[in-house]
Amino acid sequence: MRKLVAHRAKTLLANATVNSLLNPHRPSPNNNYYYYRLARLLTSIPSDTSMASDHSTPPLTVDSLNPKVLKCEYAVRGEIVSLAQKLQQDLQANPGSHPFEEIIYCNIGNPQSLGQQPITFFREVLALCDHPSILDRSETQGLFSADSIERAWQILDQIPGRATGAYSHSQGIKGLRDTIAAGIEARDGFPADPNDIFLTDGASPAVHMMMQLLIRSENDGIFCPIPQYPLYSASIALHGGTLVPYYLDEATGWGLEISELKKQLEAARQKGITVRALVVINPGNPTGQVLAEENQRDIVEFCKKEGLVLLADEVYQENIYVPEKQFHSFKKVARSMGYGDKDIPLVSFQSVSKGYYGECGKRGGYMEVTGFSPEVREQIYKVASVNLCSNISGQILASLVMSPPKVGDESYESYSAEKDGILQSLARRAKTLEDALNSLEAVTCNKAEGAMYLFPRIVFPNKAIKEAESLKKAPDAYYASRLLNATGIVVVPGSGFGQVPGTWHFRCTILPQEEKIPAIVTQLTEFHKKFMDEFRD
Amino acid sequence: MRKLVAHRAKTLLANATVNSLLNPHRPSPNNNYYYYRLARLLTSIPSDTSMASDHSTPPLTVDSLNPKVLKCEYAVRGEIVSLAQKLQQDLQANPGSHPFEEIIYCNIGNPQSLGQQPITFFREVLALCDHPSILDRSETQGLFSADSIERAWQILDQIPGRATGAYSHSQGIKGLRDTIAAGIEARDGFPADPNDIFLTDGASPAVHMMMQLLIRSENDGIFCPIPQYPLYSASIALHGGTLVPYYLDEATGWGLEISELKKQLEAARQKGITVRALVVINPGNPTGQVLAEENQRDIVEFCKKEGLVLLADEVYQENIYVPEKQFHSFKKVARSMGYGDKDIPLVSFQSVSKGYYGECGKRGGYMEVTGFSPEVREQIYKVASVNLCSNISGQILASLVMSPPKVGDESYESYSAEKDGILQSLARRAKTLEDALNSLEAVTCNKAEGAMYLFPRIVFPNKAIKEAESLKKAPDAYYASRLLNATGIVVVPGSGFGQVPGTWHFRCTILPQEEKIPAIVTQLTEFHKKFMDEFRD
Repeated sequence: MRKLVAHRAKTLLANATVNSLLNPHRPSPNNNYYYYRLARLLTSIPSDTSMASDHSTPPLTVDSLNPKVLKCEYAVRGEIVSLAQKLQQDLQANPGSHPFEEIIYCNIGNPQSLGQQPITFFREVLALCDHPSILDRSETQGLFSADSIERAWQILDQIPGRATGAYSHSQGIKGLRDTIAAGIEARDGFPADPNDIFLTDGASPAVHMMMQLLIRSENDGIFCPIPQYPLYSASIALHGGTLVPYYLDEATGWGLEISELKKQLEAARQKGITVRALVVINPGNPTGQVLAEENQRDIVEFCKKEGLVLLADEVYQENIYVPEKQFHSFKKVARSMGYGDKDIPLVSFQSVSKGYYGECGKRGGYMEVTGFSPEVREQIYKVASVNLCSNISGQILASLVMSPPKVGDESYESYSAEKDGILQSLARRAKTLEDALNSLEAVTCNKAEGAMYLFPRIVFPNKAIKEAESLKKAPDAYYASRLLNATGIVVVPGSGFGQVPGTWHFRCTILPQEEKIPAIVTQLTEFHKKFMDEFRD
Repeated sequence: MRKLVAHRAKTLLANATVNSLLNPHRPSPNNNYYYYRLARLLTSIPSDTSMASDHSTPPLTVDSLNPKVLKCEYAVRGEIVSLAQKLQQDLQANPGSHPFEEIIYCNIGNPQSLGQQPITFFREVLALCDHPSILDRSETQGLFSADSIERAWQILDQIPGRATGAYSHSQGIKGLRDTIAAGIEARDGFPADPNDIFLTDGASPAVHMMMQLLIRSENDGIFCPIPQYPLYSASIALHGGTLVPYYLDEATGWGLEISELKKQLEAARQKGITVRALVVINPGNPTGQVLAEENQRDIVEFCKKEGLVLLADEVYQENIYVPEKQFHSFKKVARSMGYGDKDIPLVSFQSVSKGYYGECGKRGGYMEVTGFSPEVREQIYKVASVNLCSNISGQILASLVMSPPKVGDESYESYSAEKDGILQSLARRAKTLEDALNSLEAVTCNKAEGAMYLFPRIVFPNKAIKEAESLKKAPDAYYASRLLNATGIVVVPGSGFGQVPGTWHFRCTILPQEEKIPAIVTQLTEFHKKFMDEFRD
């Protein structure tokens, strides 16, 4: 049997070419459908051969790469970070070779890299799920809290075969999605459906997935705040769309004004752009503002009226530092306005990298997708499934941050102390740095009401601007490199986030450990004074 | 100070629109560069407004999504899996409602979902790295092997600040890349550079990254084997390129013939396609063949001559089941031919999901990138950095699989026993299933020399083909759904992988636990007999 069939396969093979896939030379009533299936699978080869005749493969150079990749920029890991890494190597090789002892990375929201300790309960559960065979051992009782052991059992029971090493459902383990949905319900007071949750390796892949879905060409626009987190500009560039900016109003604490949205939407449409979605980052990155509920209602109403998908980046929902502000999810706001699942397409992004937990390296997160038709949802599912699933530890952690220990649990007190300690310290650090920045000549800095960043503005003297230009640098990039070379402090130039033309800023995280803040303030203040003395007009 | 600057910002803001970004109405010698930077950041809005005049946002429907997403298909998680999930729910709700007691997922290489146990040493190290504060506790000595504790310390010392919860370098933690490079050197006998390693969340994102880099338009082609693993067709579709097929020769055990490559390359070039890269999957998926070294040399030579990037999917490098075959990495083959880093652009993909470890849920993997210019490498780095980094547990696991316990380590014996037990059992299962398939009427099945799959061919009776057509199904999809409904066994129709037109196959993993194999063979044999009895011409 094997031989006969093998012979027939070989004959068929000899006849099969690229041509035959699309122009079958032996059509029969029986195999039209197979050709159709195969042709779909094999992505039809374009028939237009009117273009260049030489299609031999050119050498692989930057010029022959996908131009969308070349266009993409990602400032928070850009030039300034490469310089920082070089200086760090210098310091290791030749201690004392620079006027500072260490590099202080204030360029990226990466709390644990600066000494923040993980939440014990979360790590206990992760360790137990990684190595479940110790769950039954008596030594484990002495090493781990009782509720972490109980939670690990609960989670394992939600995983088919307790297999934490298996691919899960492409949206993530169902039981974990149940837990997350319950956490969202408890937060918002409105129902959440586990089938709306897509677990992802951090929020970034979720953002890419939505951009991939929505962007067809450069004529599709995505509305983004300026300043924005450069993931958005990078992702829009990679997917070949157009970033349509709306400016946050620095004078009103980075206010998001509907009149600005209207003006920019009109301008984009006149340029031939179909604006498909509105990105709102709340609390703001890099700007740190927390939107008022009233303002959020207006934004929801605007999206509804204009038919925009609302992409709500809510990864800093736990990071609020001022008593007068509270986080409200856009879903809660929309539901409280009476808008249900059918009324407004809304995606909320959440991540385990931020909050008080700051578990950036675990790459956990989710998006809650509501208001899409089943057919569109199916397409999102398909894209998710091409990458199989997100990592299970990250999935587990995403469920934990949405369902932390409760009053009465053995870990509750220590958990609360850890959480409050981190958040209160962050609030103090934000205030200290904000005050220090506002005391500098030519610098103003809005409050960090939330998130992890300050985004001060500097009015540079003309002489500094000219010096930067002569070095082919933007003035804020020049300032940041001077600051780094003088103090070891790494901040990101405002140009990487976008800013009103002619204004200059930098982004600085509030994450260095509290005992280091006074020295940072001193160094920054001294550097700034010298810089201004050097360039004052 | 704050007030004054805020006022100036507000004035600037009022004047800033989409237009002003690109046609600054207040140009000055000082701010040309800022506009340039900002315009680059904000992805220029196309100026061609000759197209449709109405750019108000259309309702979000499938028809208004990115057509590349719609085009993409991913068979291993497609229709047949949805049916399986439905049947599983039925069985839970109404036990006895189907003629089988459980669903046996043979559709995907997901060993731990079918009961394979993780390698103890790997999980010990992961758990300790997740919760390092237990490393110093005396109870830990009783629970964990001495070498896992030692390895955890080593790994923590390689992570800046021992912060397993921090984002790492975008290519992955340097110390782990050192370990992986050493593992590659030990495997190949040729040097490996840690700076060539990019750690990724499994191999899939690495493949996407390379497709994103190489594909500019539908006129760029990627050479793929047929049958292929559908990640490739899906990724090429998502990035808008053209899959250029080359057929593996079923008659010679899925041989990869250079004459076939030449023929198809010529045909594609005549169609106007610039073929940029050659994908080789070795050991083969879904076809299970292991390439001979001689054959690999010819492939390397072909890529060199034709200027193709060689994309080597080597994720099954540990899965070899026949004594007459051995795995040789393409890098080793190229180096042994005297080709160095400058001679041939080569990417090797590796994953923690496969091998004997099968840690699919951990989403760990890497690509080793050699033969690219520094400028091209910088672009790969940039794309990697947009997603910040891959998950740290996956990174750690990738280092462990490339550097497992050695003779003399406390865990060595138990580790070896676990590893050998899994691989020997897989080899027995492959043989049993292969023999069973070859004993079926109208079925032939090549050996699974490696990987985790069998890809038998069925010559369907015309009556079965007609029945499938009347149901608008491909015959192999019809067979797979009948098999599932009758036995609970889930296999993937060959149409999902591509096959020579007019031939029909399915892919079946060899992963069900060994004690279940006899029952699977019985069920499959009985089903097949009945199916043939029903349709025999």
